[in-house]
Amino acid sequence: MSVLRKALPDFKWESVDVRAYKDEATAPFRTVTRQVLASAPDLAGELRYFEVAPGGWTTLERHAHVHAVTILRGSGRALVGHEVLELGLMDLVTVPAWAWHQFRAPPDEALGFLCMVDAERDRPQLPTAEQRADLEAIPEIARFFGLASLSQEP
Amino acid sequence: MSVLRKALPDFKWESVDVRAYKDEATAPFRTVTRQVLASAPDLAGELRYFEVAPGGWTTLERHAHVHAVTILRGSGRALVGHEVLELGLMDLVTVPAWAWHQFRAPPDEALGFLCMVDAERDRPQLPTAEQRADLEAIPEIARFFGLASLSQEP
Repeated sequence: MSVLRKALPDFKWESVDVRAYKDEATAPFRTVTRQVLASAPDLAGELRYFEVAPGGWTTLERHAHVHAVTILRGSGRALVGHEVLELGLMDLVTVPAWAWHQFRAPPDEALGFLCMVDAERDRPQLPTAEQRADLEAIPEIARFFGLASLSQEP
Repeated sequence: MSVLRKALPDFKWESVDVRAYKDEATAPFRTVTRQVLASAPDLAGELRYFEVAPGGWTTLERHAHVHAVTILRGSGRALVGHEVLELGLMDLVTVPAWAWHQFRAPPDEALGFLCMVDAERDRPQLPTAEQRADLEAIPEIARFFGLASLSQEP
């Protein structure tokens, strides 16, 4: 691999594949892509760029491994644990071990972010129906999921 | 620590100290700052933001650990091994194990970049006088160091 991979327009890079975020059969999400920017046998961490298209969202999940996120494009919101965060360019988000988390792009703008993780890491867990209901019972989180606002609209 | 650290103007962040790049007594460099964006006992990697002021340069050094660099601000050049690279926004640079490397900002613009490394890593080595001379014997690298252009100017 070359030591230099030039940036291309629209948050793409030379010699970096734009991949599906996950296997769609394994987890719910909407319109998210994944690009692996750094991953090598001699690196303990990995650096990935995820982009959530306008109106899209990542899988609601949790795991033992930690995410260190830097917002590179656009804006959006995130649920981390029980906190709903407003995200802007260059903001830093830490997703602690076992915190439920999801990233959402606004209707009119993509949300792109770098995510550093350990190369060796556990698989994500999806919420059970009960865990999901517990989160939705919190009004701010229901609004984050787009549920409360839908019920208030005609 | 809060899960969200908002970006502040001019590539600074809430609750992130702007530190000296290195102890000036240990290694030569010019006008470089360091901010640690992600470092935790449960993360195998670390993410740092370095900024080289206009006309500044990082230490010429090498080590066993690998750098994964993403350019976030401005432009500049880097020496990696024996290659001189022209760097622009969002370009990706991999510094392989034991490659000599240095980052330089142009006279009129700062160069800012993210650098992912292993949290556990070896200490950098500085070049011996002989190693430095071997690099300077290569015209493109001498120009990168600012030597050839100085000798050509009145």
